[in-house]
Amino acid sequence: MNLRAISVNSSRLWQSLMEMAEIGRTPENGVSRAALSMEDGKARDLLCEWAKPFVDPMLVDEVGNMFLIRKGADPDLPIVLSGSHLDTQVHGGRFDGVFGVLSVLEVLKTLHENQIVLDHGIGLVNWSNEEEARFCPGMGSAVFSGKLTSRQVLDCEASDGSRYGSSLKGIGYDGKKLSPSLKVKAYLELHIEQGPVLEKESLDIGVVTGAQGQLTMDVMIHGEAGHAGTVPMELRADALSCASEIISQCRSRILKMDQGVMTVGKMEIEPNSRSTIPSKVVFGMDIRNPNTDSLEELKNHFVYEIASISEKHHCSEEVKICSFKSSSDFDENCISLIETTSKKLRYGFKRMRSGALHDACMINEIIPTAMIFTPCLSGVSHHPSEFASEGQIFKGANTLLHSLIQLCRAEDK
Amino acid sequence: MNLRAISVNSSRLWQSLMEMAEIGRTPENGVSRAALSMEDGKARDLLCEWAKPFVDPMLVDEVGNMFLIRKGADPDLPIVLSGSHLDTQVHGGRFDGVFGVLSVLEVLKTLHENQIVLDHGIGLVNWSNEEEARFCPGMGSAVFSGKLTSRQVLDCEASDGSRYGSSLKGIGYDGKKLSPSLKVKAYLELHIEQGPVLEKESLDIGVVTGAQGQLTMDVMIHGEAGHAGTVPMELRADALSCASEIISQCRSRILKMDQGVMTVGKMEIEPNSRSTIPSKVVFGMDIRNPNTDSLEELKNHFVYEIASISEKHHCSEEVKICSFKSSSDFDENCISLIETTSKKLRYGFKRMRSGALHDACMINEIIPTAMIFTPCLSGVSHHPSEFASEGQIFKGANTLLHSLIQLCRAEDK
Repeated sequence: MNLRAISVNSSRLWQSLMEMAEIGRTPENGVSRAALSMEDGKARDLLCEWAKPFVDPMLVDEVGNMFLIRKGADPDLPIVLSGSHLDTQVHGGRFDGVFGVLSVLEVLKTLHENQIVLDHGIGLVNWSNEEEARFCPGMGSAVFSGKLTSRQVLDCEASDGSRYGSSLKGIGYDGKKLSPSLKVKAYLELHIEQGPVLEKESLDIGVVTGAQGQLTMDVMIHGEAGHAGTVPMELRADALSCASEIISQCRSRILKMDQGVMTVGKMEIEPNSRSTIPSKVVFGMDIRNPNTDSLEELKNHFVYEIASISEKHHCSEEVKICSFKSSSDFDENCISLIETTSKKLRYGFKRMRSGALHDACMINEIIPTAMIFTPCLSGVSHHPSEFASEGQIFKGANTLLHSLIQLCRAEDK
Repeated sequence: MNLRAISVNSSRLWQSLMEMAEIGRTPENGVSRAALSMEDGKARDLLCEWAKPFVDPMLVDEVGNMFLIRKGADPDLPIVLSGSHLDTQVHGGRFDGVFGVLSVLEVLKTLHENQIVLDHGIGLVNWSNEEEARFCPGMGSAVFSGKLTSRQVLDCEASDGSRYGSSLKGIGYDGKKLSPSLKVKAYLELHIEQGPVLEKESLDIGVVTGAQGQLTMDVMIHGEAGHAGTVPMELRADALSCASEIISQCRSRILKMDQGVMTVGKMEIEPNSRSTIPSKVVFGMDIRNPNTDSLEELKNHFVYEIASISEKHHCSEEVKICSFKSSSDFDENCISLIETTSKKLRYGFKRMRSGALHDACMINEIIPTAMIFTPCLSGVSHHPSEFASEGQIFKGANTLLHSLIQLCRAEDK
């Protein structure tokens, strides 16, 4: 088969993305489609309606993960799984997750209209609740990979008091544990990069070799309020001065390493009054590194550093480790396949790590996995202005098409 | 006259402070008595009622400053002015300002019951709107000293749309420009320290030699939002990292000097989300120094430093100078008099500068002025927990009594 003879229909794919974006559309042209909301239910229904002519069976597991399967020529062979998620952040964008789902649908349509039947079947998967915006922890892919139990997820409670299990039932996607369980050869996930690297380097494809580990901490600094004019510097316990030095010092440490990132995105100051020395500052640290050992070292170093800087500022500190996720290394065969495909298609590509966590990181634990990134405008994501052009999504979906064609070829052929 | 033969009645003074604190009392035992509010009106009425037996005339000027005068033996001599303010911050305390006003009333009562008539008259003054909590700029003492015009102050608008002039009329304290203007020999103001120095050093009296200059700036840092995991450190424009380095660097500069303070009390972060790089940070800087030239140098240095740190962080900055108030040096004769008095009374005292701005800083521009500080609990002020003990206020008011007795002695005697 001539690799370049067939290709996805990018205007059809674009059309489907824009139609799906109407479900949960916000005034600023973004999408709010929280997992297990009525909008999520409608999006799932639309996906089923669109996929029905090309797949059989359509399976839903006990936490709402959907597997829409196009059978292969040899029913004994394991299927190749690909997809992503239809849920979004509150005020999220039109591409994150849904691009990976609808691209597989476009692949199935392309295979269908070209009357191509591959040896292995292809399973289009919509993972439930990837964003964990309402129910956390509660990723459907974490249940599939055995990192969470279905009981943990079904019992998970949102801040509005609703439960995962009953919400799932409410939208009619409360399925059953798959039996027999799916036999899967490999998992590929196509996603926008959500970062600026591909755009800055004018590349088409990111061949994703794994994902960074992630450490999140909450830091609380207790100082002492006082009048901005009357308390001498040496008698102060200024919680914001202390927090500022912590942020600067920890950032310097990260800059000295050749990889990894650190972000303090959220901070609350008390009493937050112009002429009063801050008595309390609470902030969240998000630290990511491709090396789990480095992340562990950073954790210990930062906890020590926070304590010693606090002491210097006459402040006291509380540090809470909120989460520690090890880094993922994807499957080298899958990575090479995507790389070779990109090369053959003459797309500009590079190997890179994912800064964000994806369903692929969960699935990678049990199935050979890799990801394909496409550039997005200014690297912006989780925001209504999230954007990828039709040309960019074409190259991503086409790389996925040809990678899947290769993966679905029986190995003895 | 034997200096130690008479003294103020501290339980009577305490009683009057507690009774006044009922006007505008908050549930946490603090006081909310904003300038020109109904509570301010009631407090002024009560002061007049209490002072009436001891003073004549009672004058009110065009911006509501009140002068309650106890005539001296020689009506041709200028009066000695002393007082402070009855208005408080929102959720302020029971001592700031009112202690300085009611102590003069206590002095007048003490002189009266000891049948002492001094050569010079004493004017008890209640300055209007010292806190500028509702109307800013609009200090009554600034009008008295010619720093603001009465028109500027009367036209000043509060955030709720009300004007100084009409609010003043509403409480019945819209007086007339004093004619002839008061002839004043000196001004003394007694106040709680609002800082921790006297308490830490176990002293009774602060002999205040002047007040620090004050510079306030608003700093706005513009960065670029991005995903906490996917944007490499070198491509970030992290507004909070930038602000943190600015605060740390500017603080280091202040610590290298042997005087002055710097406070960042208020900060707002956007979008203030855990996993998003901050795109905007706005914070207020409050810098004080006893030397006006040093303050000017710091202003220039900080503006330069903020720009250069912002550039390093790929951020842009806006700096707005909100106010620049020169430092005040009080009158050496008044200072020495207070010092000598404290010494004779065998109180523990030290010369010190005021970190906060007071009415005295305005009056110092046109009249020989000094201030007396007394310790307050943990240096806390502008808060319901603001506290000074009866023993502490006794020594302060007694120092005021005997300083005024000295000042009101005709110089040829």
